[in-house]
Amino acid sequence: MEFDLIHRYFKTPFGGLAQANPDTVLFGIGDDCATLRLAPDFHLFTSTDTLVEGVHFFSDDPPRVTGWKALASNLSDLAASGASPLGFTLNLSLPEIDENWLAGFSAGLLDIATRFNCPLVGGDTTSAGSNPLKTLSITVFGQAPASHLGFNRAHAKIGEEVWLSGTPGLARLGLLLEYQRRGRLEQLCKGHELPQVQALLAAMPAKLRQIAVSQLGMPVPRIELGLQLRGLASACLDLSDGLSGDLAHISGASEVSAILFQSSLESMWRKLWPEIDQQANAAGLLKVLLVQTLTGGDDFELCWTAHPNRHDAIQSLKVGLHCVGVIEPGSGIWLQSQGASRERVSSCSFNHFAEIQN
Amino acid sequence: MEFDLIHRYFKTPFGGLAQANPDTVLFGIGDDCATLRLAPDFHLFTSTDTLVEGVHFFSDDPPRVTGWKALASNLSDLAASGASPLGFTLNLSLPEIDENWLAGFSAGLLDIATRFNCPLVGGDTTSAGSNPLKTLSITVFGQAPASHLGFNRAHAKIGEEVWLSGTPGLARLGLLLEYQRRGRLEQLCKGHELPQVQALLAAMPAKLRQIAVSQLGMPVPRIELGLQLRGLASACLDLSDGLSGDLAHISGASEVSAILFQSSLESMWRKLWPEIDQQANAAGLLKVLLVQTLTGGDDFELCWTAHPNRHDAIQSLKVGLHCVGVIEPGSGIWLQSQGASRERVSSCSFNHFAEIQN
Repeated sequence: MEFDLIHRYFKTPFGGLAQANPDTVLFGIGDDCATLRLAPDFHLFTSTDTLVEGVHFFSDDPPRVTGWKALASNLSDLAASGASPLGFTLNLSLPEIDENWLAGFSAGLLDIATRFNCPLVGGDTTSAGSNPLKTLSITVFGQAPASHLGFNRAHAKIGEEVWLSGTPGLARLGLLLEYQRRGRLEQLCKGHELPQVQALLAAMPAKLRQIAVSQLGMPVPRIELGLQLRGLASACLDLSDGLSGDLAHISGASEVSAILFQSSLESMWRKLWPEIDQQANAAGLLKVLLVQTLTGGDDFELCWTAHPNRHDAIQSLKVGLHCVGVIEPGSGIWLQSQGASRERVSSCSFNHFAEIQN
Repeated sequence: MEFDLIHRYFKTPFGGLAQANPDTVLFGIGDDCATLRLAPDFHLFTSTDTLVEGVHFFSDDPPRVTGWKALASNLSDLAASGASPLGFTLNLSLPEIDENWLAGFSAGLLDIATRFNCPLVGGDTTSAGSNPLKTLSITVFGQAPASHLGFNRAHAKIGEEVWLSGTPGLARLGLLLEYQRRGRLEQLCKGHELPQVQALLAAMPAKLRQIAVSQLGMPVPRIELGLQLRGLASACLDLSDGLSGDLAHISGASEVSAILFQSSLESMWRKLWPEIDQQANAAGLLKVLLVQTLTGGDDFELCWTAHPNRHDAIQSLKVGLHCVGVIEPGSGIWLQSQGASRERVSSCSFNHFAEIQN
């Protein structure tokens, strides 16, 4: 039965994608090992993520969305390293054989795997035993030329600019909307935040709501941007835990401080929501949006630093790239308001173990 | 807390192993991706396995043994492909932070990683949410020269010999002893098998019991043998599910039949248990041992086919290699007894999903 399952939902639908890459995938699903050929003088990049039902995705999430996001989060790590995808493996631990879920999950996985030409090359499907909830892990493989050693977090230098792709915080807005729809908004917001967040969600235009929900459900990893940033960026990472927490990894490893300009972050939001200034409480709404950018995860956008003489080259790569800060001596993450005053931003990145301990 | 945990049990103890391989591990734990350098003109080999508490290991197994076996099963897949280890990633999904378990688990993992010079290069540690039991996945990376494309299961040819390393079935004996010790032997044996198995366990010499328990708990993946078999073996795999089921993968993919000689398999057992013929029911005991070899998994020994003109070269590689059969036209796995009669062996490989469906 396990073999049938693997054939029906994985080997058969994904077979074409592996066969379409005969120079890379020498052996895929079915032997003891998958065998991949890297380009000459290229290095291997690999990353792995685990998703647990009820922790990282809702039990009633559309399985197609779960499939998409599972690979998206791993491809995003390749993007943040400037590597191009070679393939991935999948570990599924299932409490029961739910064919509806498997069909949707494998379809979502195939969608994103096809879009990024990243074939499934192996995996393991097991019973979850007494565990009632699904656990899945994906390990992705990519490559980059030996001349490009990735974007080390310790490589941010004083005077460099801080850049963002897209509008980090959008996925958090999508999550807030999803929780609100389920009547569980208070689970995500502390008491004093709740009325502010409710006011924000009520004011959001319908189009922005759609964008936020899509950013949460089907984030697009920035693979192409990561390749374009080779030779332009110094430090780079993908925003999986929120800007303040993730940028703190760069400032810590590089032993510098990062200054974020409130006006730049607000401009970023105004591009998506130009009518916001017509709201009576525009300043309050922008502040709540700022908090989502600083603390909200799961956008899979990139954050990187680059020398100012790369500014024009980066700005011309594509629309939707935002220069929002600067690297200075010191430590920590700071928010600089219009009035030039600076406020230290505490690290609010999401911590799964803090949750189960508290 | 997650970072502390990773540092204490993984990054710190495994750091030295990664640093001892600076030509291979360019970046390890801590960045978005690990970066590995393959040797020029080498291909990447990768394999992944999931272990679920209560399904693949006992909750009260010594965690050191669980750590050892988790990596051993993956290294065994590299061995079966003739690849040498580069490193591995680890996914841990934990219902709680059990420091005793983590300390033992990471120590066992470090033991085998050090023995096979296979550094931990990345991973993901998450809460198991509402799942009460641990789930862990390991993905291992290895390499082999481009001239060696692994040992494809479809490459067994008529007239080739069938070989085994070690004494497959030993781990099953270890498992039977463990279940007996816990008073749960009947969970592993169907009604009519139980008295035969009890007679076998009662007759086993103390030394053989020790070997069996050690084979179950700390199997040694045949990495060195896999490298030696490059250029000698045609098809090869590791015995994780039992000889009859695993050899059926070769016979099926190669569209041939495999004949196993009962006398050769009995000789293999007599080398470990020379006194067996002094037992009153020696023939019956040998038959039960044969069943363990055909159906018992988790030995992580290798099974391969090779042209008879390689016989002497293989025999001289090391002790404990057994030529036990031959490839013929036809299909399926057959057991040939001393009287030259042949009996078809049904595939009895372990199937996790069959278990939860029945």
